[in-house]
Amino acid sequence: MAGVAQQVNPPRGMRDFLPAEKARRERVLSAIRSVYSAHGFEEIETPVMEDSSRLHAGLGGDNEKLAFGVMRRGITAEQLAAATDPLDLVDLGLRFDLTVPLARFYATHRAELPTVFRAIQMASVWRAERPQKGRYRQFVQCDIDVIGEAGPLAEIELITATAATLTELGLEGWTIRVNDRRLLIGMLEAFGIAADDHDSALVTVDKLDKVGQDGVIAELREKGLPADALEEFFRRPTTMEYQRFGEAAIRKALPEGADEAVIAELAAIGAPVIEAYGDVVRFDPFLVRGMGYYTGTIFEISHPSSAGSLGGGGRYDGMIGRFLGTEVPAAGFSIGFERIVDLVEQGEVDAAASVALVYEPEVPAATLMRLKLDLVAEGRRVRIERTQKNLKPLYEQLAASGFGSVATVTAATAGVTDLVFRQLG
Amino acid sequence: MAGVAQQVNPPRGMRDFLPAEKARRERVLSAIRSVYSAHGFEEIETPVMEDSSRLHAGLGGDNEKLAFGVMRRGITAEQLAAATDPLDLVDLGLRFDLTVPLARFYATHRAELPTVFRAIQMASVWRAERPQKGRYRQFVQCDIDVIGEAGPLAEIELITATAATLTELGLEGWTIRVNDRRLLIGMLEAFGIAADDHDSALVTVDKLDKVGQDGVIAELREKGLPADALEEFFRRPTTMEYQRFGEAAIRKALPEGADEAVIAELAAIGAPVIEAYGDVVRFDPFLVRGMGYYTGTIFEISHPSSAGSLGGGGRYDGMIGRFLGTEVPAAGFSIGFERIVDLVEQGEVDAAASVALVYEPEVPAATLMRLKLDLVAEGRRVRIERTQKNLKPLYEQLAASGFGSVATVTAATAGVTDLVFRQLG
Repeated sequence: MAGVAQQVNPPRGMRDFLPAEKARRERVLSAIRSVYSAHGFEEIETPVMEDSSRLHAGLGGDNEKLAFGVMRRGITAEQLAAATDPLDLVDLGLRFDLTVPLARFYATHRAELPTVFRAIQMASVWRAERPQKGRYRQFVQCDIDVIGEAGPLAEIELITATAATLTELGLEGWTIRVNDRRLLIGMLEAFGIAADDHDSALVTVDKLDKVGQDGVIAELREKGLPADALEEFFRRPTTMEYQRFGEAAIRKALPEGADEAVIAELAAIGAPVIEAYGDVVRFDPFLVRGMGYYTGTIFEISHPSSAGSLGGGGRYDGMIGRFLGTEVPAAGFSIGFERIVDLVEQGEVDAAASVALVYEPEVPAATLMRLKLDLVAEGRRVRIERTQKNLKPLYEQLAASGFGSVATVTAATAGVTDLVFRQLG
Repeated sequence: MAGVAQQVNPPRGMRDFLPAEKARRERVLSAIRSVYSAHGFEEIETPVMEDSSRLHAGLGGDNEKLAFGVMRRGITAEQLAAATDPLDLVDLGLRFDLTVPLARFYATHRAELPTVFRAIQMASVWRAERPQKGRYRQFVQCDIDVIGEAGPLAEIELITATAATLTELGLEGWTIRVNDRRLLIGMLEAFGIAADDHDSALVTVDKLDKVGQDGVIAELREKGLPADALEEFFRRPTTMEYQRFGEAAIRKALPEGADEAVIAELAAIGAPVIEAYGDVVRFDPFLVRGMGYYTGTIFEISHPSSAGSLGGGGRYDGMIGRFLGTEVPAAGFSIGFERIVDLVEQGEVDAAASVALVYEPEVPAATLMRLKLDLVAEGRRVRIERTQKNLKPLYEQLAASGFGSVATVTAATAGVTDLVFRQLG
């Protein structure tokens, strides 16, 4: 259909980034990278694909079902006819998170890495989710992980570096909610819920923000789980207030008999972060975090702008061992880049350093290039544009691209000193 | 097999990047981005996947066959059974270059883009090539393109920006070979090769560097193509020397009767680049460039370190129209990031700004974090490390990660002023 414009779009749920938005994303990524690096983390990169069997090893929770599968190369007609499951034809898949690839990376390179390895990963992941507002099939995650540190220092460094990043980006009003899976389990036990029912009960408790206390109690009863003790607990005056940190506050927010060692550890994690960044860490006894692989501390960033979280993480001591064959303690914190980038104020572009040369058609290319390169050598960003009848739209577009001034080049222009710059916008 | 280490590797032909290599890659990418931006180009980003039909529309040459296909989601047993071609089960694919996605991007967003659009793309592409030394299945390309400029100014800006980038990266000894598809076709005609045989003849001429003049003549004869005139042309004394630019030199390197307008255009393209960067552009009458979509000027970077090229490009006026339905002139220059990054000297890491704190186990986490954050606030990059019996390997690893000095933290350390830093390495 030559001559007839086709409707062309990026694949469903995936986005193009035009220059202004791309520049903004790169600025935010660069700020995040720089804070994480100052805090002693080091960036790594893995391929976007992993072996399909590794992506479907049960470490990715529900996200495994959302993995894009990559077709094996060179499939014969016989192989195609013999396939009974689409996965028979797939040998690779696009990563759905950065944690499974990190575990694989660590298993591959352990001998070359420091005993305590602090990794930065800033990269795209892919999930075949039903596209909806603010949810994409390709999106960027920024993860930091500490592998090889069993003590709470890992959590402290992760939360501190994350708090420093949010501060550097100029975000306000955020809170890091903290809990521990072991306290959560202890709480379910205290409420009389049997071990076999813990997973199901946690799915319900996880909905507290959405359905409220009555909704949680009702759903537990619907599932046939004991809810009386929890209902009574909910009636306690202070428990549902987020608590300032400190062992006493944590103990007060939990049913009696909670694990004192875990309480002390959580308090130790919060104290240095609060000392450095003020009242930004809260203990939330009902914070669940979906991923099944968490084994200890869990955390999540709340922000008034967003019903969901801006990021989260926790300790996942069992996971690295799945690929390595040896248990290695690990904890990580992931921030949701796509939500963060929408909240960050548009940074200043250095418009003064950006100039446009609007040239008349008779100007020789060699003259134009000499002018351009002389200005580039002075440290300017230079755009050349052919003159047009109506200059207004051109000037508007240049201003929108961050060009601060413009000069006209005619056949009489001999050098940079002949140029007269006028301010744009 | 708990307790037994599995062999774990990234997928075949794909690479992990450890911190030192990742940092080096990011430094080089950042330098390239910065030069291109100074030259008036703007970065964009497209999703890694495109619709499979678009990737297989005949614009990618042989690379189309190397595209990784992405399996459709939710394939039913019936659909699987009905499939007669693996491509029936694929709706998306990973991009094999950045040109097809750019053409699609331009068609999608034309209304929002400047009349002459100068794009930067720095991103991974994927090709299911047989893995071999220096050839990967995931690799980074850095492309600049000028869309909407029919005149030679597009080529001049592309070649100048590329020359500026190679210079900024400190590379030496490179040459940009230039030719024009129209001169190439004229030459084949002058040698008596029929239009129908041009593609086949060009495949043979393209092997000149590899098989030499005798090899080219022999292969043309094998193919039953007339080779006498070319053989005689090869005997001319100067033709096989790369020529200094200028119309006279180009004319001398071609059979008689070559298109004077194209010769003048090529000379006009070379002159400003040579003025700015010296003797770096050469006319090569036998430069072919594989891709069928080139319509005018073609160029390629040669470097003594490498038998292949470090990059290349050209004018491809017909291609954007394939998705847009309107003809739009375009030209692009792609540099092979993977080859370039291997040639760039290791940049200086600011080791003086990077300090490590080696702490005794009894130091409270809160003290340690206070020290760390105070140093970060001073602009340092800070790594904390638990002390160990033999400190030598730890110090070596820190030095390798670019840490310039180390201080020991004991229970007696109260603040940053108590720290005594020793040089590392």
